Amino acid sequence: MEPAPQPPRVAEEYMETPMNELLRALDASDGSALLAAAEDIHYADLAHLYENLDDEKRDLLLKTIGPELATDVVAELPYPLIEGALNHFKPAQLRVLLGNLSDDDRVDVFQVVSEEAQVRFFSLLGPRDKELTRNLLKYEEDTAGGRMTTHVGRITADMTVKQAITVLRRDREDAETLARIFVVDAQGRLVGKVRLRDLAFSTWDTPIHDIMEEADETILASADQEEAARILSKYDLIVLPVVDEFHHLLGVLTYDDALEILQEESTEDIEKLSGIGGEQSEVSYLNTSVVEQYQRRVSWLIGLAFLSVVSGYVMFRFSAVLEKAFVLSLFLPMVVAAGGNSGGQAATMVIRAMTLGEIKTGNALRIAWKEARTGILLGLTLGVTMAVFISFILPHIQRGTGADFDFLHLAFAVSSALIVQVLSATVLGALLPICARAIKLDPAVVSAPSLASTVDISGMMIYFTTVGAILHLH
Amino acid sequence: MEPAPQPPRVAEEYMETPMNELLRALDASDGSALLAAAEDIHYADLAHLYENLDDEKRDLLLKTIGPELATDVVAELPYPLIEGALNHFKPAQLRVLLGNLSDDDRVDVFQVVSEEAQVRFFSLLGPRDKELTRNLLKYEEDTAGGRMTTHVGRITADMTVKQAITVLRRDREDAETLARIFVVDAQGRLVGKVRLRDLAFSTWDTPIHDIMEEADETILASADQEEAARILSKYDLIVLPVVDEFHHLLGVLTYDDALEILQEESTEDIEKLSGIGGEQSEVSYLNTSVVEQYQRRVSWLIGLAFLSVVSGYVMFRFSAVLEKAFVLSLFLPMVVAAGGNSGGQAATMVIRAMTLGEIKTGNALRIAWKEARTGILLGLTLGVTMAVFISFILPHIQRGTGADFDFLHLAFAVSSALIVQVLSATVLGALLPICARAIKLDPAVVSAPSLASTVDISGMMIYFTTVGAILHLH
Repeated sequence: MEPAPQPPRVAEEYMETPMNELLRALDASDGSALLAAAEDIHYADLAHLYENLDDEKRDLLLKTIGPELATDVVAELPYPLIEGALNHFKPAQLRVLLGNLSDDDRVDVFQVVSEEAQVRFFSLLGPRDKELTRNLLKYEEDTAGGRMTTHVGRITADMTVKQAITVLRRDREDAETLARIFVVDAQGRLVGKVRLRDLAFSTWDTPIHDIMEEADETILASADQEEAARILSKYDLIVLPVVDEFHHLLGVLTYDDALEILQEESTEDIEKLSGIGGEQSEVSYLNTSVVEQYQRRVSWLIGLAFLSVVSGYVMFRFSAVLEKAFVLSLFLPMVVAAGGNSGGQAATMVIRAMTLGEIKTGNALRIAWKEARTGILLGLTLGVTMAVFISFILPHIQRGTGADFDFLHLAFAVSSALIVQVLSATVLGALLPICARAIKLDPAVVSAPSLASTVDISGMMIYFTTVGAILHLH
Repeated sequence: MEPAPQPPRVAEEYMETPMNELLRALDASDGSALLAAAEDIHYADLAHLYENLDDEKRDLLLKTIGPELATDVVAELPYPLIEGALNHFKPAQLRVLLGNLSDDDRVDVFQVVSEEAQVRFFSLLGPRDKELTRNLLKYEEDTAGGRMTTHVGRITADMTVKQAITVLRRDREDAETLARIFVVDAQGRLVGKVRLRDLAFSTWDTPIHDIMEEADETILASADQEEAARILSKYDLIVLPVVDEFHHLLGVLTYDDALEILQEESTEDIEKLSGIGGEQSEVSYLNTSVVEQYQRRVSWLIGLAFLSVVSGYVMFRFSAVLEKAFVLSLFLPMVVAAGGNSGGQAATMVIRAMTLGEIKTGNALRIAWKEARTGILLGLTLGVTMAVFISFILPHIQRGTGADFDFLHLAFAVSSALIVQVLSATVLGALLPICARAIKLDPAVVSAPSLASTVDISGMMIYFTTVGAILHLH
């Protein structure tokens, strides 16, 4: 007989009961029930819950769960909430909590709180933590050094496995990860790495020298964090050692840093592409205020509006052409929009390829040539499709154009404008992000809407001049 | 005295010399130089190089580097290149190579090659690999089961640390990661986990039972891979166990799977948002053909073109209004585009928040209310800005409107249209992705261009009716 089926214990469902208990305990201000429930919940979930509580309940939660769990929760909070959370604690509790934080999380705290709080928190640190924090604060927030942790397993090549295990046992709970242990020389320079599995499975008298491997991948502390994330991701590393120019081992970045950095970067790309400005919010969408949403969007909208007035001006100038044959307005939005759409596609492909590190500015000519061919194919397809539509289908819907040209001439004129517009917009869309990168701007500043508004202007001109010339309307 | 500064050995620079040597060896068809250089290069870099070689050099590279390194390189190749790469080998070599592949990579190979190759490759597998592959092929490619590896450290709770180490030593080189070792019962059901560091640092007679922890986070094999990636990322896990409904341990997903899945997902969102269809290419931007680029973009462009003809039709129908006051064309593109831009911003915020798991369809009303307030603020700001521009600045640039209304009336009319257009587009942009999700579509199908083309139509109507009514032009 088969054993009786056990109920599934998948993360979400498993969490539900303790979370409900916790919410009830919070409502009832029942400290001991709160503590019991909180201990069964992952700190990441507690941090997520904290975001959505009012101030009184936040206070109760933080003070009840004890300093160890509170440390994990605080480290997981969105940056704008951290200072407020720490202010719930008395100095003595705060000293414990700041001491408990891992060094990279502690530096993050110091980077995001107000200057007043920085001074106050710093005075609470022990002497070793003070020095460590001061050292780490030297690195910019978005560099490998600014994000690394110094908690890393370190041994020397002349140890035996037994000596190494004794040294590492000390750091056992402290080190961010022991998946890789780094071998340094007497000056602290990185000379190699050892896998924990090789330590665990070797006899105790094996010299480290015999089981260590070269540490091929490293990154300079001053390097961009995105560069570090790409190396971690490309080589499937769990840990990437961070070094200075003299190859001294300063700390490590881990796989979860890479995940966070790459997610932030993708969000940034997506937002910039849609014309959303400013820094991405650290708190979730529903918790950002309407005013903050407004601030991040309004300046792009105003800039784009004035750009569109230029399109309007072109249209106004060509009003004579339009007045002679109002049927032309049927295809004006289409020709104009086709430029924004095809240009936006090209820009997106190029920006994403740049983010993934697939292309560099040196490839500009190759990319322009590739997009020019794609643009011609797209323009021809659209042109022919519209020519067929205008020549064969439109006459059945609409009889007579009210102007002295026939549908075939109109089809030819509209299609010609369409091909020119799609081809030029595609090449422009591909090249603008590359130019932005070449002058050290983020390629994603070439947002799809600003590109669209720009090719709207050229589209109006292309349409009216091409159609006007072919149909003799000037 | 300071020690003499050592030259930096950062990844990129360190790689440069062996890579140049390899390229020279390839050009000279020098097998032994090729082999020597290849051994100093990471397989991820070799795979990247392979992509850019001609067929003859690909053949030389694969055949020279030996089956072990070749296995790593093949596993790292973009999917469309895998079958071609494998066809460089004779059956005997292929048997070794397929046997060397880790089980998840092997399943990937079977999922991407042609049916003919599937049959041919399958016949080369050993009996154990045959069964394993058949089992893994049962899961859909984009589920947790379809992406997991079955190579995982497994022990039972009644073992001692010494017994566990003996068991694991067997799997030592094989297991994807030993950072977490899973404890199963006699039926193979997951009962807990042990960290390798706890094994390494405990005395040999410690029972596993004493050092094991609960395995809180698990995922069903049938669950979506994105769900798995989100759990790995949220809880900063290195390994996530994959189970069936009876909680049998089937395999694991690792942090690098999460990285890959989340990157793919971001690229998909970005591409869909820009109206690029189809599956994202597995090969890099520069290596995809113009025809493939064309195919992914053309259908959206044609669809959008016809949608824009509807805008044109609205404009055509209102030609009487425009004919009475051609100055109105100055602000037509601006009002219309403001809708696309503000709607696109709202859609982007909502789609990204959904991807990051921050909001659900149940929040629709709250989101609509939030976006309505943001939309009113944005519309008012734009409206007032344009009213000021039209009333005070425009008269200095352009004297007389050629129509029987003054600049103040015009300003009021244009601003009113602008507010209605921005507010409606913002709410629509936020709600459409939620509706898409509610009917089980990917929210990102509401691409920015399709949204823009839709609100173009409503924008034309709003503009002409509002302006026409206020200025009495009907």
